Amino acid sequence: MTVPTPTAVHAYIEAWNATGAARRAAIETATTADVRYVDPLADVTGTDALDQLIGGVQQQFPGMQLALVGEIDAHHDVCRFQWGLGPAGQEPIVIGFDVAAIAADGRISTVHGFLDKVPG
Amino acid sequence: MTVPTPTAVHAYIEAWNATGAARRAAIETATTADVRYVDPLADVTGTDALDQLIGGVQQQFPGMQLALVGEIDAHHDVCRFQWGLGPAGQEPIVIGFDVAAIAADGRISTVHGFLDKVPG
Repeated sequence: MTVPTPTAVHAYIEAWNATGAARRAAIETATTADVRYVDPLADVTGTDALDQLIGGVQQQFPGMQLALVGEIDAHHDVCRFQWGLGPAGQEPIVIGFDVAAIAADGRISTVHGFLDKVPG
Repeated sequence: MTVPTPTAVHAYIEAWNATGAARRAAIETATTADVRYVDPLADVTGTDALDQLIGGVQQQFPGMQLALVGEIDAHHDVCRFQWGLGPAGQEPIVIGFDVAAIAADGRISTVHGFLDKVPG
């Protein structure tokens, strides 16, 4: 079964807001086992490493939620989307931008992340 | 020798404005032999295919120049940049956005392209 790109991206966003087994399940829904995630501050490969990275970010920004900003722009096997991290329902304090490559099964195989806004 | 990322990106932009042997040379400076280029309208792999794609776009937009818009934002082995295509020195009629992955030798191995502005 192939996961549609929006499903994979939404599960990916969900992973950033979940903890424990729910986070792990969302990562596995969203990404391949050998997923590579790279942004200006991190470069990790594989489900375990991504799970640990997200856990670390959650500890660094307690109570914050990650949410999509705007639409997912997808074509072929790639997509881009912007996200915001902040207190739920409030102005995000961090805004980032990801380009994701999609594997044959529809899950995300690579995330190339960039930061558009960081705390001053 | 490793090509610095800005050098690779500038050679890549140059390739879009060059023709014949100069275009080929710029592509070879900028990208790996197995480079993959994908945007909403094209999906090609390899030096020959990229050369042909650029030639086709040049025929479609005669007299236009491609130029960087803003800065190159690079970290680890990835970078992003915006570009404009239009008559030299004038407002671009097409604005696009690329994320490039950089190979070990510094050349671009993958371009994930998106369109930010297209002719209405």
